[in-house]
Amino acid sequence: MGETVRVIVLGTGQMGSAIVELLLERPCLELVGAFGRRRERAGMDLGLALARAQPIGLAVEADLASLLERTRPAVAIQATCSRLAEAEGEIAACLERGVHVISIAEEMVWPSAASPECAARLDALAKAKGAVVIGTGVNPGFVLDTLVVTLTGVCARVDAIRARRVNDLSPYGPSVLRSQGVGLTPEAFRAAAREGTVVGHVGFAESMAMVAAALGWKLERVEESREPIVTSVPRETPHVAVAPGRVAGCLHTAVGVVDGRQRMHFEHPQQIRPEAEGVVTQDVVEIDGRPDVRLSGSPEIPGGVATAALAVNLVPRVLAAPPGLRSMLDLPVAGTLPGGPGRG
Amino acid sequence: MGETVRVIVLGTGQMGSAIVELLLERPCLELVGAFGRRRERAGMDLGLALARAQPIGLAVEADLASLLERTRPAVAIQATCSRLAEAEGEIAACLERGVHVISIAEEMVWPSAASPECAARLDALAKAKGAVVIGTGVNPGFVLDTLVVTLTGVCARVDAIRARRVNDLSPYGPSVLRSQGVGLTPEAFRAAAREGTVVGHVGFAESMAMVAAALGWKLERVEESREPIVTSVPRETPHVAVAPGRVAGCLHTAVGVVDGRQRMHFEHPQQIRPEAEGVVTQDVVEIDGRPDVRLSGSPEIPGGVATAALAVNLVPRVLAAPPGLRSMLDLPVAGTLPGGPGRG
Repeated sequence: MGETVRVIVLGTGQMGSAIVELLLERPCLELVGAFGRRRERAGMDLGLALARAQPIGLAVEADLASLLERTRPAVAIQATCSRLAEAEGEIAACLERGVHVISIAEEMVWPSAASPECAARLDALAKAKGAVVIGTGVNPGFVLDTLVVTLTGVCARVDAIRARRVNDLSPYGPSVLRSQGVGLTPEAFRAAAREGTVVGHVGFAESMAMVAAALGWKLERVEESREPIVTSVPRETPHVAVAPGRVAGCLHTAVGVVDGRQRMHFEHPQQIRPEAEGVVTQDVVEIDGRPDVRLSGSPEIPGGVATAALAVNLVPRVLAAPPGLRSMLDLPVAGTLPGGPGRG
Repeated sequence: MGETVRVIVLGTGQMGSAIVELLLERPCLELVGAFGRRRERAGMDLGLALARAQPIGLAVEADLASLLERTRPAVAIQATCSRLAEAEGEIAACLERGVHVISIAEEMVWPSAASPECAARLDALAKAKGAVVIGTGVNPGFVLDTLVVTLTGVCARVDAIRARRVNDLSPYGPSVLRSQGVGLTPEAFRAAAREGTVVGHVGFAESMAMVAAALGWKLERVEESREPIVTSVPRETPHVAVAPGRVAGCLHTAVGVVDGRQRMHFEHPQQIRPEAEGVVTQDVVEIDGRPDVRLSGSPEIPGGVATAALAVNLVPRVLAAPPGLRSMLDLPVAGTLPGGPGRG
């Protein structure tokens, strides 16, 4: 990247904010615009919209087409949503104008898991317009898929893969806590999980499809279960107080069946104040094969900053990739992109 | 890879043998020849040369040019040596005929560390002949470089990197044990380290140059030290018995200096029977940055089978890469290549 790369950000929430900070730190990247879905923020200085101390000198725009026309970015980083159906319109608007898209929408990590048709549409559009579209994030996108596949590179044979990501929901706000059923009774949790209002983790289907594709495994199905993590002690965050006997979080488990055998077992318990009952946050990958591989780290790689970093660090790799829908498996390793002087 | 890929192996030692086994297991790859440097093995069945129970039906050849002419392979996997100067001739012979080369020579992982001139020659030759040449292995090539860079992908900033690989030399034969000073007195060890007959690990310079390149760091120098691991209890393997007070192995340490600061600290203690004094074999990566990343696994990823697997798993990625000298940083993630029926 000889000259600076013009980048816009879609989304002015917590993740959009983290991405903006990383872009501002990097001399090789130039933040040239920001799109926000909320009309009431249109025209507001991006710095104020993100509750920064200083204005940034860029107005948030609610009209994506006009933002793209005016700023002519090389890359758009999308941080507006999790689901493919909701992400597609904005991605397509960028691709139409030949703008590369890096999305942190969970389902974009391996879009054919949620919708092969949508994945095919995005691939065709990207190729027609000479642009690249790719999804990334810490999970899905890294811990339970890219890292797992990278580790299988040392194996002559893989029999089964177990992976576990234990995190802490304490920093999150009401909407995330609701999606994990925090504060509910166990009965209400189970009903909400059945109805789909307790969602748990979005991304197991994507991670497992990605690992299976890398290993040449035919993934027959992914079986998911959501169980309440019931606290036996009081747990509290700024947004919620949970009494003993109530739900502190969601233990979401997925089993990937290949050739009739359970070859992948991934779990992702998410709860507030895990330390209240001695639960250690961590990432764990265990590959049974030749050789066995065991790797773990505590605390877990933190979701927010890591997802923002993965998206920003990917920019040079996306610029060098052939047009089309790509995945983290298609691009070379992307290490940390250098920051400003002294930041390294 | 629609049809099978024709592969030859250079080297009939322990590593060549492990690579041959993996090639024979994989229906997508076809072992079509084997080169051995030792003239007295020429014409011997490869299976017998490798002390297999069954013959393979391929004769070991000592004339590489004639082997290449006769077998017309797509890929050659080189497992004959560690050093670039010794590896170059065989690699060049393959590239001259447009044959891709995957080398497990340690210095080939990042050849410009040992010789920028040789790296430039190989790159020019590979490009002229439309072939790819790349080095890989568990270390250097994976644990202390590719894995480290992969993990920095989640970081917005990297301040310093520490990594440690603790392994067990007990399975190795006399030549490896000699290169680590096993059985010497501490004084003799220090003299041999000064004279270069106790080598320790080959690859720190390569791993550090690779990490620095990925992070945009200007590596000023790599400072290496080799210290004796003196045993306080008797330790024994089939090849050596070490009395208390003598050397059980080599603690090899490297510090990478970037902008006057020690930003990389890698260590690789290698010894026989580490468990005799409670030493746990492991791989550890610790990144200080935003966020910090801590990942470790025990036992360590075993060197032999992992290096063979990395080399073989790379074949499809090499076939798809643009011609020239490539590194593990240039190619997409290579997971385990599927084996035969039921092997996965």
